[in-house]
Amino acid sequence: MDNDISDARRQEIEDSFSRQGFLRNFGARLAALEPGRCVIELPFGDVVSQQQGLFHGGAIGAVADSAGGYAAMTRLPEAGDVVTLEYKINFLRPAAGELIIATGTVLRAGRSVVVTRVDVHARKDGRDVLCAAIQQSVMVAPVKPRP
Amino acid sequence: MDNDISDARRQEIEDSFSRQGFLRNFGARLAALEPGRCVIELPFGDVVSQQQGLFHGGAIGAVADSAGGYAAMTRLPEAGDVVTLEYKINFLRPAAGELIIATGTVLRAGRSVVVTRVDVHARKDGRDVLCAAIQQSVMVAPVKPRP
Amino acid sequence: MDNDISDARRQEIEDSFSRQGFLRNFGARLAALEPGRCVIELPFGDVVSQQQGLFHGGAIGAVADSAGGYAAMTRLPEAGDVVTLEYKINFLRPAAGELIIATGTVLRAGRSVVVTRVDVHARKDGRDVLCAAIQQSVMVAPVKPRP
Amino acid sequence: MDNDISDARRQEIEDSFSRQGFLRNFGARLAALEPGRCVIELPFGDVVSQQQGLFHGGAIGAVADSAGGYAAMTRLPEAGDVVTLEYKINFLRPAAGELIIATGTVLRAGRSVVVTRVDVHARKDGRDVLCAAIQQSVMVAPVKPRP
Repeated sequence: MDNDISDARRQEIEDSFSRQGFLRNFGARLAALEPGRCVIELPFGDVVSQQQGLFHGGAIGAVADSAGGYAAMTRLPEAGDVVTLEYKINFLRPAAGELIIATGTVLRAGRSVVVTRVDVHARKDGRDVLCAAIQQSVMVAPVKPRP
Repeated sequence: MDNDISDARRQEIEDSFSRQGFLRNFGARLAALEPGRCVIELPFGDVVSQQQGLFHGGAIGAVADSAGGYAAMTRLPEAGDVVTLEYKINFLRPAAGELIIATGTVLRAGRSVVVTRVDVHARKDGRDVLCAAIQQSVMVAPVKPRP
Repeated sequence: MDNDISDARRQEIEDSFSRQGFLRNFGARLAALEPGRCVIELPFGDVVSQQQGLFHGGAIGAVADSAGGYAAMTRLPEAGDVVTLEYKINFLRPAAGELIIATGTVLRAGRSVVVTRVDVHARKDGRDVLCAAIQQSVMVAPVKPRP
Repeated sequence: MDNDISDARRQEIEDSFSRQGFLRNFGARLAALEPGRCVIELPFGDVVSQQQGLFHGGAIGAVADSAGGYAAMTRLPEAGDVVTLEYKINFLRPAAGELIIATGTVLRAGRSVVVTRVDVHARKDGRDVLCAAIQQSVMVAPVKPRP
């Protein structure tokens, strides 16, 4: 069904996220998950900052890539995983604030490739500013059930 | 001069690299620097891996972005910094091995925008395999001398 | 002002469009222009088709690139032109129909670089289907007034 | 075999190229074809120019996209076609001259996705200048033999 994510799929995504050491090290959290949409939040901290006290582009890219990938996973017809084929990121403004919020949206869910867009906002004093825009494609990788 | 980097510029790039907490946390090192070219190496470790024991795409993207940016800096006519406008990354193969090596090369150094390509190889048992390809543009940000 | 385009700017954009032989050959027309937004339509025909009777990817790319560029021009503070730095296009579905409609939207209008997204829909029997997604940056090229 | 293209594959590519009305209208020609590499040339003319007498970005994109796609076709294990998933193009310099030459090279030929890079040079008075750089992925579309 298009209008909700099954409990099994939601669990699968949450398990996958919790295994992502790279993102967890940064303090990223899965904030919302709906059919065709995923939101990941990342609080500011030393490990994700660059020399001027802004969010580092590498952290922005990693969080955006994940938000797109998990958005894609919500659209898979069956149990399965996705692998990023490619993404393109434009940095729009310095990412300053307490938090960045990456919102991934599925543009097209094909049988083997899913294309997404991700918007990354920085939240500062309650105002959200668009700081990066991503366009991504991921490949569907069917997972064989574990014995 | 086109055939060498001035000592001042080299120092400027090394200083910038050493201020990059994000990359240093990962254990990345500036391996080579020539006019129009920069090599950054990243050894494998927990913090840069994903759940299957490969290098994480986020780490690959961050290192590649930096290799392109520093390659661009070698081409600036005057003291200055660069800011990434955008990059596009294609993941070609799983990045397995002891080390990844990101080699950035300048395609075109304009007055305000520099375009680069970066190849990322994974080294395993002495064999290098191309695992990601990046095309990037950075904006030249003139730095005012500090008082 | 943010809420309307000056008559001079609108004229400037229409003049630029009418000088674009490449697009006019294809039969493209400037369908709508608002602050931060431009719509270009391209009717189907032999010259823009490929061997299977669909719109050719090259025509889709050219029209999308222009829709983004003219959207950017609506945001320039002064008389000026833009030059495409780069774009990235994902082809989502076969572009079949009577018409394609490229809608460019400005994400961020900086002083020297403007970033846009463009959606390309194909219209068939009154239904619009998203067939390509573009993310683009253009450089602002100030125009000296002609003597 | 890696070192040559079979006659059947070469014929298949030449047939495909000759059916490409869009490119033929422009006067493009398939100049060279080797395993993992394809060169397409496009002579200057009214239909591929923009208002300042340079090659139009849309023509450059179309020719580059094709050079990458046909390079990919040389690497397919069996009879088959490719469909462009996405490409990213950076425009490096104004494309002025008698001819543009798009050279596509395969970076990675996977089973279902092939990634390429394409360099576009403009030839003027016997000098070639790099004017655009493309990074592309295409999907392999197996062709059923016609009855």
